[in-house]
Amino acid sequence: MKDETARLMTLVREKRPLVHQITNNVTVNDCANITLCAGGSPVMTDSPEDVEEMTGLASALVLNIGTLTNAIIEAMIIAGRTANKKGIPVILDPVGAGATRYRTDMVWKLLKEIKISVIKGNAGEIGALAGAGGKVRGVDSEGMTGDPKEACISLSKRTGATVVMTGAVDIITDGNRTAVVNNGHEMMTTVSGTGCMTASVIGCYASCTDDMLLASAAALAVFNIAGSKAAKRSKGPGSFIMNLKDELAHLTPNETIPLANIRLL
Amino acid sequence: MKDETARLMTLVREKRPLVHQITNNVTVNDCANITLCAGGSPVMTDSPEDVEEMTGLASALVLNIGTLTNAIIEAMIIAGRTANKKGIPVILDPVGAGATRYRTDMVWKLLKEIKISVIKGNAGEIGALAGAGGKVRGVDSEGMTGDPKEACISLSKRTGATVVMTGAVDIITDGNRTAVVNNGHEMMTTVSGTGCMTASVIGCYASCTDDMLLASAAALAVFNIAGSKAAKRSKGPGSFIMNLKDELAHLTPNETIPLANIRLL
Amino acid sequence: MKDETARLMTLVREKRPLVHQITNNVTVNDCANITLCAGGSPVMTDSPEDVEEMTGLASALVLNIGTLTNAIIEAMIIAGRTANKKGIPVILDPVGAGATRYRTDMVWKLLKEIKISVIKGNAGEIGALAGAGGKVRGVDSEGMTGDPKEACISLSKRTGATVVMTGAVDIITDGNRTAVVNNGHEMMTTVSGTGCMTASVIGCYASCTDDMLLASAAALAVFNIAGSKAAKRSKGPGSFIMNLKDELAHLTPNETIPLANIRLL
Repeated sequence: MKDETARLMTLVREKRPLVHQITNNVTVNDCANITLCAGGSPVMTDSPEDVEEMTGLASALVLNIGTLTNAIIEAMIIAGRTANKKGIPVILDPVGAGATRYRTDMVWKLLKEIKISVIKGNAGEIGALAGAGGKVRGVDSEGMTGDPKEACISLSKRTGATVVMTGAVDIITDGNRTAVVNNGHEMMTTVSGTGCMTASVIGCYASCTDDMLLASAAALAVFNIAGSKAAKRSKGPGSFIMNLKDELAHLTPNETIPLANIRLL
Repeated sequence: MKDETARLMTLVREKRPLVHQITNNVTVNDCANITLCAGGSPVMTDSPEDVEEMTGLASALVLNIGTLTNAIIEAMIIAGRTANKKGIPVILDPVGAGATRYRTDMVWKLLKEIKISVIKGNAGEIGALAGAGGKVRGVDSEGMTGDPKEACISLSKRTGATVVMTGAVDIITDGNRTAVVNNGHEMMTTVSGTGCMTASVIGCYASCTDDMLLASAAALAVFNIAGSKAAKRSKGPGSFIMNLKDELAHLTPNETIPLANIRLL
Repeated sequence: MKDETARLMTLVREKRPLVHQITNNVTVNDCANITLCAGGSPVMTDSPEDVEEMTGLASALVLNIGTLTNAIIEAMIIAGRTANKKGIPVILDPVGAGATRYRTDMVWKLLKEIKISVIKGNAGEIGALAGAGGKVRGVDSEGMTGDPKEACISLSKRTGATVVMTGAVDIITDGNRTAVVNNGHEMMTTVSGTGCMTASVIGCYASCTDDMLLASAAALAVFNIAGSKAAKRSKGPGSFIMNLKDELAHLTPNETIPLANIRLL
C-alpha cells in the first residue's frame, strides 16, 4: 500500500478538501493547523445553527468528543446526518470513551444516529467500546485485557465502521481486511492532541478515496513519518509540535514510499 | 503614511491598550499572544454576564464570528453597545460570512445593533457582504466576481464602517479615502488565524487614533512586515507562527518606516 | 525546602497524577501541555454531565475562571464537591477577580460552595479578594495598595486556603507559615497564560503531598526555573513558550536543588 499512500497524498494536496471538524477546545488549534499542513482546508464550527450548511460544503466530517456538551452532541448529530445524506465520510474520535459513562453513552448515541465511516481511538477507548476490557485514565489509554486485533475486528463488525486503534503499532480493520502501520515515535505521546490530529489527517485522506482502510493507513503512515522526522530535531515537547507541523507540510510522496511501514495481515 | 504608522506604533506600545476580544475558540490563543506582541493587553471574555463591565474597562472591542453561537451573539451585542456608549472603536471580523446563511445573517444583525468602526475580511467575505459575488469555502476566500475596490467602497458607504479587505495586497477604505498596503508573505496563508490576528492588531491601533483608515493601514503594515521577516527564517508553518510572534514583538518603529508599503489611492 | 522540592518533583513524575482542569478557552492547550511537561496527565472536561465522574478519577482539580459562563460555574461546583468528598486538592485561579463584579462574585460563590486548597492569583486579584485595594486591568495585575504579605495571610485566614501571590517574587502562605520564591524571568509576562500554567503545575504537585505550602512553593520554583532557562535561549514570546515546555520537560531534580530560591519567612 506504499504506492497507494503516495498517490493519495498527492491527491489530497491537489484537491485541498474542506474538512469540517466538530472538536474539543483543547487541541482545536493544532487540529486546524495540522489539517493545513496535511493539505486540507479546516473549518471548525460547532453551532447547531451553522453546522448543516457547513457540512454541506465539506468533503469530510470529523467528530471528536474531547470536551463534549449536550449542545455539541446536538450539532454533531445534525452535521452527521447531513454528511450521511451527502455521502461524505464521517470520522469519530471517541476521546475518553470508557473513562466516564457520559462519554461512552454519547459515543453509542452518535453511532446510533449517524453512519460512521472510521472510528479512531487508543487501545483503552477501542477496548472499552469493543467490550474487551479497555482501560482509560482521563483521556489516556491504559490498554485492554482482550486481544487488540480481535477487539478492532469485533467493533468494526458491530458498527460497520473501519476501526483504527493507535499505539506503538497502529491496527486498522474494516472487518475483512486488517492492516498494521509501524511508523511514529514515542515523542508523539509527550504532547497533547496527537491523537486528535491523527483524526484530522484521516479526515483529509478519507475525503479522497472510497477505501477507508487505505485512507486510514495512509494518513497514519504520513502523519507518523512526519512525527519521526520531527522527533529527530526536537529538544522537547515544545519544539516537537512545531517541527511536526513543518515536517508534515514538507513531506513529499516520493519520500514517503520507502518510509511507510504499512502491512496487510 | 509611513511616519504616521511609526508614530502610532510607538503610541500603542506606550499606552498598552486593553483590547477586549470576543472571538472563536480556534485561534483565540494566538490572538491573545499577538495582541501582547503588538503592544496591547488582551482580555477575551465572552460571557453575557461579564462583557458589559469588561468592555467598560477596554480601549477597543474586537468581534470575530469564527465559531459563533447564539450566546456569543448576545454577548457581542451587549459588549458592542457598551463600546458605542463609551465611544471606543469596534472591529468586526466576519469570518466565513458568505459561506453559511447563519454567519451572513449574524453579521447583518451585528451591523444593525452596533455601530462598527472597522470591518475586516478576506475578498470572499467582503464580496459576499457587499453583494459583489464573494465566494467563501469554509473560512477561506475564493475571491469575488465584482471589482474589489468598488466592493469595499460600497460596503463602507452602506455601513459607515472603514472596510479592510485582506489579500496579497490589502485594500482599506473609509468611503472617501482608499489606501492599499502591500506587505506580507504568502507563508501567512499556511497557518490558521492570521486573519483573526490581523483584527487583533487593528484593535490595538484603532484604540490610539480616531483615524480608522490610518489605524487599519498601520496595523496591516506592521503585522505583515513582521510576517515577511518571519517567513525568511522559517522552515514551515510551525516555525513561522513562532517567528511571527518574535518578529512582531521586536519590530521597531524606525525599522518600519522604510518597509511599510502603504499608498493612498 | 530545596531538597523537599526535588523529592516532590521526582514523586510527581513517578505518580504521573491525573489533573482535572476546568479552565478558560484561551490558554487551555498550553495548560494541558505544561501539565504533561511537569509530569502530570491532564484532562480538561467542563461539561456538567461529565465532570463528577472525571473528578472521581483524578488526583487534583484545577479551577480557572479566565473565560467563565454560568454553565462552567455549575460544572466547577459539581467537580469541586466531588473533589472535597474524595479528599483531593482543589486549586483556584481567580483570573480577573477584581476587574468585573461577575468574576469577583463567582470567586466568592466557589469559595462558599467548595473547600479550596490553594488560591493562586496575581497581586491585583489577591489584593481585590483580600480587600487590600487590588487593581486588575482585564486579567493583568496593577498591584495593590495594601501590604502584599499581610493581604495573603488575611485571605488565607478568611478562606482556610493556602494563598499564592505571583509576581517578581512569589509569596505563599498557609496562614501560619509564609514562604517566598524568587525564581523566574520577566519574559514570562510576555506570553498569555503563564499564570494559568502555574496553577496547572501546582495541581500536579498538590496531588503528591498533603503540604500545600510545599506543593505551591515547589511548583513555583520548578516552573520558574524552567522559565529562566528558557528565557536565555529565546528570541521573543513565540520561541519562549516553546522553550519553556522543552525546559520544563527536561529539568532534573538534581539541577533544581541549587537553583530553587525558596525561603521560609
